[in-house]
Amino acid sequence: MHKVPVGVLGASGYAGRELCRLVAEHPALELSFASANEQRGQRVRIGASEVTFVATEDAPLNKAEVVFTALPHGASAKWVGNARATGARVVDLSSDFRPGSDARTNGIQAPYGLTELMRAKIPAAQVVANPGCYATAILVAIAPLLKEGWIVPGATINVSAASGVTGAGYSVRQDLLFAEVAEDFRAYSVGNQHRHIAEMRAVAKELGGRDNDILFTPHLLPVARGILATIAVPVREYLHDPSALWRDFYSGEPFIEIAADPPSLRDVVRRNVVRLSIAKAANVRQPTLVLISAIDNLMKGAAGQALQNANVLLGLSEQTGLPA
Amino acid sequence: MHKVPVGVLGASGYAGRELCRLVAEHPALELSFASANEQRGQRVRIGASEVTFVATEDAPLNKAEVVFTALPHGASAKWVGNARATGARVVDLSSDFRPGSDARTNGIQAPYGLTELMRAKIPAAQVVANPGCYATAILVAIAPLLKEGWIVPGATINVSAASGVTGAGYSVRQDLLFAEVAEDFRAYSVGNQHRHIAEMRAVAKELGGRDNDILFTPHLLPVARGILATIAVPVREYLHDPSALWRDFYSGEPFIEIAADPPSLRDVVRRNVVRLSIAKAANVRQPTLVLISAIDNLMKGAAGQALQNANVLLGLSEQTGLPA
Amino acid sequence: MHKVPVGVLGASGYAGRELCRLVAEHPALELSFASANEQRGQRVRIGASEVTFVATEDAPLNKAEVVFTALPHGASAKWVGNARATGARVVDLSSDFRPGSDARTNGIQAPYGLTELMRAKIPAAQVVANPGCYATAILVAIAPLLKEGWIVPGATINVSAASGVTGAGYSVRQDLLFAEVAEDFRAYSVGNQHRHIAEMRAVAKELGGRDNDILFTPHLLPVARGILATIAVPVREYLHDPSALWRDFYSGEPFIEIAADPPSLRDVVRRNVVRLSIAKAANVRQPTLVLISAIDNLMKGAAGQALQNANVLLGLSEQTGLPA
Amino acid sequence: MHKVPVGVLGASGYAGRELCRLVAEHPALELSFASANEQRGQRVRIGASEVTFVATEDAPLNKAEVVFTALPHGASAKWVGNARATGARVVDLSSDFRPGSDARTNGIQAPYGLTELMRAKIPAAQVVANPGCYATAILVAIAPLLKEGWIVPGATINVSAASGVTGAGYSVRQDLLFAEVAEDFRAYSVGNQHRHIAEMRAVAKELGGRDNDILFTPHLLPVARGILATIAVPVREYLHDPSALWRDFYSGEPFIEIAADPPSLRDVVRRNVVRLSIAKAANVRQPTLVLISAIDNLMKGAAGQALQNANVLLGLSEQTGLPA
Repeated sequence: MHKVPVGVLGASGYAGRELCRLVAEHPALELSFASANEQRGQRVRIGASEVTFVATEDAPLNKAEVVFTALPHGASAKWVGNARATGARVVDLSSDFRPGSDARTNGIQAPYGLTELMRAKIPAAQVVANPGCYATAILVAIAPLLKEGWIVPGATINVSAASGVTGAGYSVRQDLLFAEVAEDFRAYSVGNQHRHIAEMRAVAKELGGRDNDILFTPHLLPVARGILATIAVPVREYLHDPSALWRDFYSGEPFIEIAADPPSLRDVVRRNVVRLSIAKAANVRQPTLVLISAIDNLMKGAAGQALQNANVLLGLSEQTGLPA
Repeated sequence: MHKVPVGVLGASGYAGRELCRLVAEHPALELSFASANEQRGQRVRIGASEVTFVATEDAPLNKAEVVFTALPHGASAKWVGNARATGARVVDLSSDFRPGSDARTNGIQAPYGLTELMRAKIPAAQVVANPGCYATAILVAIAPLLKEGWIVPGATINVSAASGVTGAGYSVRQDLLFAEVAEDFRAYSVGNQHRHIAEMRAVAKELGGRDNDILFTPHLLPVARGILATIAVPVREYLHDPSALWRDFYSGEPFIEIAADPPSLRDVVRRNVVRLSIAKAANVRQPTLVLISAIDNLMKGAAGQALQNANVLLGLSEQTGLPA
Repeated sequence: MHKVPVGVLGASGYAGRELCRLVAEHPALELSFASANEQRGQRVRIGASEVTFVATEDAPLNKAEVVFTALPHGASAKWVGNARATGARVVDLSSDFRPGSDARTNGIQAPYGLTELMRAKIPAAQVVANPGCYATAILVAIAPLLKEGWIVPGATINVSAASGVTGAGYSVRQDLLFAEVAEDFRAYSVGNQHRHIAEMRAVAKELGGRDNDILFTPHLLPVARGILATIAVPVREYLHDPSALWRDFYSGEPFIEIAADPPSLRDVVRRNVVRLSIAKAANVRQPTLVLISAIDNLMKGAAGQALQNANVLLGLSEQTGLPA
Repeated sequence: MHKVPVGVLGASGYAGRELCRLVAEHPALELSFASANEQRGQRVRIGASEVTFVATEDAPLNKAEVVFTALPHGASAKWVGNARATGARVVDLSSDFRPGSDARTNGIQAPYGLTELMRAKIPAAQVVANPGCYATAILVAIAPLLKEGWIVPGATINVSAASGVTGAGYSVRQDLLFAEVAEDFRAYSVGNQHRHIAEMRAVAKELGGRDNDILFTPHLLPVARGILATIAVPVREYLHDPSALWRDFYSGEPFIEIAADPPSLRDVVRRNVVRLSIAKAANVRQPTLVLISAIDNLMKGAAGQALQNANVLLGLSEQTGLPA
């Protein structure tokens, strides 16, 4: 069977390596190249196969039908342009093309690749802006409420979320050393300062949340991978079974799971899913739903969703090569 | 120097062992007995000293001037009564005597031992109801707002908190095995179902929060000890430096730290402090403060605060024998 | 395609669940039943599929062509007999049928399923005794030395090995709680007391190690899965490249990897391999090789190797359904 | 009470910070300065106190009676000389002055500070060479055997040891990131290549081990602190109770514990002790003792022992300011 040649730029980071692994296991794709400037020339084992990194400058972009760019935010847009110039289609994992970004994108248009919510625009796209990991966990959870107009007008959606350390990328930072992270837990970007809030706000607005603010406090967990978002949403009233809204909304979606019990990281790690639970808060006068949303930040939060989008670009089943 | 004899009932759990350790290092206390039914007769090393557990039935209650009861909720009230009958004063670490409890307490009155907030009633008390760990972290954080009337009337105070596994006690439960907790993170009692919400609500009301609900979602962290609470409070308006309120309110308190940066577990573990930060949320129309409150659940959240209360009972300086 | 029906007895433990997951992903097998007495009737998610546990008594043994028994040591032999009585072939993960066992096996013969070393006897077997996890890591490492007679006669082979907690099974033991295992490391069965030493000694003797003792000290690691064995073997002399012996001996074996650098748990977790390195010790008068052997205790150390043996029983390629 | 002024050079690393903490809690010492080039000017909280780092160049060496040098190996000798020039006595935590070192020491003599074994030379010393962490754990364990001549002549002492990540210092290395260390375990310097083997060999020879080699394989543990060494020693014969040798040898030593059960990291972390167990190996023809030795690499393995040596230098009780 002919396999579609793909390339990965920025392959040495956690998301990039996950992409290489997924491509190696994908029945319809083959890896043409994987670039990593600092590790150029190195041969590394990724899953059961081996990859030799090339410098990004030396990546044979013209050999790939699809290029995944997993480069740092700000550095990606240029290489998306370079890949486009060779005719490749691109799934960009940086924030450069996402709503709310202020990166210079030279007029390139890229639909937002939160596949389940915005699937229609992807097949014809030349570039897909793959969503951020926190944004994926949160937007999938609140989209039905936004679209159906259940949220109290003017109310703030309160999100407390926690991520494993691979969410910070493969950065060699003192505060990410084992001895600093183990047995610790900390909030960061406190006071709604996280750089991806613009992305969430912009997409939430598109989804119907014109009138609601998001207050988002991220935390760093002493785990390697996984994101858990705890979301309190003031709603107009309680329905008998509020989870029915989500089950209907995501009916038939293989990668969205509506669970009776709150999901935990173990339920989603190494899987390309969003797993959600919905509960009515007791003992409060303002009816409020508490949503728990769990993803693997490297799968549905990055490489897995990128591959899902590549499957859409190529006309393949979305599930091809993706463990549910 | 004469040392005050004290006893610990329920000494084999995490809080009980921490108490034995603190008593051993306390310059004015000595351990008369430590009870643990299932480990009766065992000699265990606790810190640098050794303790032989007796059965709770066999504890010589009359030999202790102060008895700490670290027994399960519901089982404690009876033993508090037994200790009182011998004339001992008691610091009870269970929830039995706390506001909002429905345990039968046989008419025994016990002031709530959140020392910094309710210090006046403790010196004369026969029994002190030592606060819960989550309640300590949260109430210390929001007390100034409640007392000063800064919170938007009718608003919900949104709390997402995470605790290390010793918060669940020394229970031999499958879901607390290393292989189940490591690399995981999960919410529990979702939907405001936690059994200590009654305690928080009752005390918050006393502190002035007659009009505000608390929505509380606890999580289990893959760490041994520590609690971090992330608290969003809608306020009437933003002051230039909101943290001044806390600095004034807790001025001179050795165990309350108002920090510029968000505290993390590492800042508080093995210390008897509450460490707090206060931030104004950006990008929201409703002014909202985000408080981060960190404690060691076994110290300020249990054994440390119990010893602080015992110090007050005995007329000692609150800091005696307590690492700040 | 017709799939071969298989059953798993003892499916709720870590090895049993791993087996269910592997069977679900295996292209030629299908799960007929999975038994777990204490969780009978429960429906659990294992990987991407769901399984309803039955009581072991109620397992329809006659519906399975191959039965995997992952029952406790001592309890397994009876059920192996029951499965045999229905005509099923059995891969037994307990120690009951292994060399050195003193379990009553009622005359049932079972070749030892260390596939790479004893492949010839498996195709015709009715029951295969699947090796222990430590034994797999150690015997694969030393087999070439034993067979080629490189070891100093009379010398002791010194093994220090460390295992993740799933090696102890899904036991609800206080010493396996997260708060007891995290940040700890301990030796156990010190003084050559481990119950699987008999298995290693008996097999090593078969492989040619008539004259050498094994001194084995296991340790408990604060990780979920993986075994690393560090093995010092006094040898007659140093060859220029000692690893050539292993490369030749295991030439063509897909599940044995001879590495230039010492393997770590990350290299093998979730894979059905033994990964080995060989180094000459400097600064010692007695030439000594230091072997590092890494496996996933639940894969090559239990469920993975069991499936590998089932593949041999069924005449399938050994790699079918097994991630290398 | 007059306190002795001391300084710490290299105070931002793990050992340096531990030293600052111990000095702050020491009843007879006060911290004059703490240097850290990269963090010069920063004010950091260490335990309950705060320290402002100065550049090493700017440290007022003449204000300290004792200077602790916790600088990188090779860089320390020069600063030891500088401190000596001001008349300060020095405890050097680097390897520069240890037996087997090839650093240029400009004629400065420094006794080896394994206090329990070489206490006599320390009081009069101007500089003490504080031992390495692995060396401390191992030499304390085998010293009685070496001194008493129990080991089989010519035999190799086989050591497999594992250390928490703080043993590698506060290095910002990719392989020490949380996501690389958690759930992993790896050997390093395999084949007797560790740079501290010269130290162990040289001291072992002094202690009587002229005739025995040491084969040492270190491992990296996913824990912050602690070292566990598993040591197999071929001995001439088995005595009824071999641990009596250690109990006699270390009789009265407050920091050496001979335990009946194998010690684990939890037994020693945050304590300045070596905890040891001794077991006779069963099932081997060559009588062999298996010693398990546990220390906290930052306490008895670095800062704690340094303070113990400073206590000796100053004529204080060795236990002053040191938690046993």
